Amino acid sequence: MELIEKLNWRYAAKAMNGEKISQEKIDNIIEAISLAPTSSGLQPFEVVVITNQEVKDKIRPVAWNQSVVSDCSHLLVFAAWDTYTADRINFMFDLTNEVRGFKNEGWENYRQQLLGVYVPRPAQENFEHAARQAYIAFSQAIAAAAFEGVDATPMEGFDTAAVDEILGLEAKGLKSCVMLPLGYRDAENDWLVNLPKVRKSKEDLLIKVD
Amino acid sequence: MELIEKLNWRYAAKAMNGEKISQEKIDNIIEAISLAPTSSGLQPFEVVVITNQEVKDKIRPVAWNQSVVSDCSHLLVFAAWDTYTADRINFMFDLTNEVRGFKNEGWENYRQQLLGVYVPRPAQENFEHAARQAYIAFSQAIAAAAFEGVDATPMEGFDTAAVDEILGLEAKGLKSCVMLPLGYRDAENDWLVNLPKVRKSKEDLLIKVD
Repeated sequence: MELIEKLNWRYAAKAMNGEKISQEKIDNIIEAISLAPTSSGLQPFEVVVITNQEVKDKIRPVAWNQSVVSDCSHLLVFAAWDTYTADRINFMFDLTNEVRGFKNEGWENYRQQLLGVYVPRPAQENFEHAARQAYIAFSQAIAAAAFEGVDATPMEGFDTAAVDEILGLEAKGLKSCVMLPLGYRDAENDWLVNLPKVRKSKEDLLIKVD
Repeated sequence: MELIEKLNWRYAAKAMNGEKISQEKIDNIIEAISLAPTSSGLQPFEVVVITNQEVKDKIRPVAWNQSVVSDCSHLLVFAAWDTYTADRINFMFDLTNEVRGFKNEGWENYRQQLLGVYVPRPAQENFEHAARQAYIAFSQAIAAAAFEGVDATPMEGFDTAAVDEILGLEAKGLKSCVMLPLGYRDAENDWLVNLPKVRKSKEDLLIKVD
């Protein structure tokens, strides 16, 4: 299957060459993010798309000084909602009614159920839930980048509070949780590029209940 | 891009027809799970692959009685490590040395760093981190299923403790976090199949820093 070929081609690039990614390719990667499924369709995150060199350079020192942060073409920062609020939940339910052009009693009951469960829940619990949804989108971005022949470096190793400060995320009710530098591998200077992928065996990965 | 077409085709099937998925298609979906990137390459989860009808029927009532749980062909349950332990971390570092056929000082230092940070950390914090990695694999399974023309229903709505009990996961140091019934849509009986996808606008999804 072509997807498997692409996933075998991809790896977490440790050095990038600064080449810019075309708008068409970026648009496709963002479309994959947008299409990713999320719990109750809430899409409880935003994605910061950074091409500004100064901002990338500011983030690099709080991301273990990894060169791909400043040498990438586009730096994507996935920032999850800090909590679920009634406004945020209602936004998506109202949008759904608008797009579908009708109201549905079951859907409205489901809205009330989510409002009842999510809004009073501790912010940290809501954030963890929202962050998992951001990871679904993050993962589809990685697959989409591979499809475009674009390198990507999945990256959790950064000071999330510092990145939130640099990007002004707190005021937007967002907290960064994972980032994805996108660009093109600098094969000559990347120690990882020629090393084999390591994965545990299917015996260790799977529990079969036949 | 073909991936975008596939992601547009997919939706969270609400009714499945019981048709069995071929072994080749399942193998490809599992391969995508295996190839998904994870933090430090730890793959801190296992995937329960359930075809046994009795077990599916037992899970259905603790999963909001959703029909796809019993009517699917294969039910995948993603179960994250309950915590990081020295053994679990060492397993992956040792495997890497074995696959690559050499030891590297930087890699060994990184091993010590992870052991120092992860092992003493509260189990809940480690589980949340492991669960996010499981979501990366879960997301690539969704994309792979779409590639195979297989329907999938991303599902968080279940009693994780009850599923852990049914599958005996606690004894394995695992906790279920998300499931994915796989099969074929029963288009005539699925209220969702013909409704348009709802996604927030790119303006609401993205923060551009040019």
